Amino acid sequence: MADQWPECVSRVKGVILDMCGVLYDSGEGGGVPIEGSVEAVRRLKSSDLQLRFCTNETQATREKFVAKLQRMGFDIDVREVFSPAPAVVSVLKERCLRPHLLVHDDLLPEFDGVDKSDPNCVVIGDAADNFSYQNMNAAFHVLISLDKPLLFSMGRGRYYKETDGLKLDVGVYMKALEYACDLEAEVVGKPAPMFFQSVLNDMGIQPHEALMIGDDLVNDVGGAQRCGMKGLQVRTGKYRPSDETHPTVTADGYVDNLACAVDAILEHRRV
Amino acid sequence: MADQWPECVSRVKGVILDMCGVLYDSGEGGGVPIEGSVEAVRRLKSSDLQLRFCTNETQATREKFVAKLQRMGFDIDVREVFSPAPAVVSVLKERCLRPHLLVHDDLLPEFDGVDKSDPNCVVIGDAADNFSYQNMNAAFHVLISLDKPLLFSMGRGRYYKETDGLKLDVGVYMKALEYACDLEAEVVGKPAPMFFQSVLNDMGIQPHEALMIGDDLVNDVGGAQRCGMKGLQVRTGKYRPSDETHPTVTADGYVDNLACAVDAILEHRRV
Repeated sequence: MADQWPECVSRVKGVILDMCGVLYDSGEGGGVPIEGSVEAVRRLKSSDLQLRFCTNETQATREKFVAKLQRMGFDIDVREVFSPAPAVVSVLKERCLRPHLLVHDDLLPEFDGVDKSDPNCVVIGDAADNFSYQNMNAAFHVLISLDKPLLFSMGRGRYYKETDGLKLDVGVYMKALEYACDLEAEVVGKPAPMFFQSVLNDMGIQPHEALMIGDDLVNDVGGAQRCGMKGLQVRTGKYRPSDETHPTVTADGYVDNLACAVDAILEHRRV
Repeated sequence: MADQWPECVSRVKGVILDMCGVLYDSGEGGGVPIEGSVEAVRRLKSSDLQLRFCTNETQATREKFVAKLQRMGFDIDVREVFSPAPAVVSVLKERCLRPHLLVHDDLLPEFDGVDKSDPNCVVIGDAADNFSYQNMNAAFHVLISLDKPLLFSMGRGRYYKETDGLKLDVGVYMKALEYACDLEAEVVGKPAPMFFQSVLNDMGIQPHEALMIGDDLVNDVGGAQRCGMKGLQVRTGKYRPSDETHPTVTADGYVDNLACAVDAILEHRRV
């Protein structure tokens, strides 16, 4: 069935690309593009398909992150990129919440306009080395002191791949704080349906008209499918062979990399 | 019902005491005894009841830990104390396992005789500041590289109380690694039934003849009750008022502190 995936493409009007593990592998010096991905993005942009980028990246502001991708050669604009920090800032403002932040230093500017005094919730992102025992305790103390502890997690990934190996992602620390405080975090970012929906709204298309391509079977592919979209998994980034026999999530198709996916999509649409 | 708890004491032949939060509050300089506890232990020892101590403490070897309690004035011997590190060392040797350790530096001597080369499992304890992002990733890499990832957790507590506030306990990091690797840890220490059973075996008594006294409702009281023992909660240490309306665990009795518990036990046995 997976080999027939390009047939679903005929109805597709928009493509959503995950970034890390699909466009590039992260690591020292910002990372390296995955072979063929720069050209694949260019080809999608030249087609009649709409294109957006959807990332759970929270180690830099969206501006700095996009600038890095541009330096790698990608044709990409900040307005095409959806990431959790601007989404969580909207939620905080809507609900009059003042966050205690446990995030990467380079993400802090996203929260410049947010009141952080006398915090009444905790926001965590992919804080990497900032996930020290001391900082985890500080976040825990804020939560445990609240009548109704409220934790926002920017994504719920288990791990991601850097050039020097797999690294623990924010979801792991979300689970840690959930257990410590006996609560359930609100996830902002993939796979939250609201997050995918905001991308669909921006393109002005229906879920069945959209195709998500990612390296994270559960959060990219499974998350998109639960919203009614199609989901492809690339065999790059954090992909592991066991993903193809996952007990609960089956991608609409598996492809070696983004370049192969774009080949098949564009080929099928010409037929 | 909770007020009638001393009635169950008539059948009791042995008392098991949790240590941190019952005997003393931990913190800078080793901590301070809880008022009345030194004398309470002395009175229990002078009675016809057997007495054992059962801790999930993994920040020091059992010898150093007991020496600290002795300096606080407690009449206590290493042979009366059950802690997770010697228990996990037995399990490792029985099953020919070679651990990667993520533990407190001061616990390392407990593992001196254990082969730690080419690890085929991970053992975590209350590592405190050693729970850095880097060390968590190192443990994760060992687990994710194994065909059958195997994680031992010395306890599953959420947090404990030090003199300067609550601190995250090993269970929180156990949950983090469980989620990262999609596995379930084997808990050694409270509330594992095998651990409680080893204490009962040492006293040569049946579960219904034993009374556990602890400040941790779920792991001390609930754990003991699941083994058929009675469980009292003291209102010291990590006790919180909401414990008395916990949805799944109800102690056989709640007492202000160990001294009050011992008063009631000895008073009731005289009647």
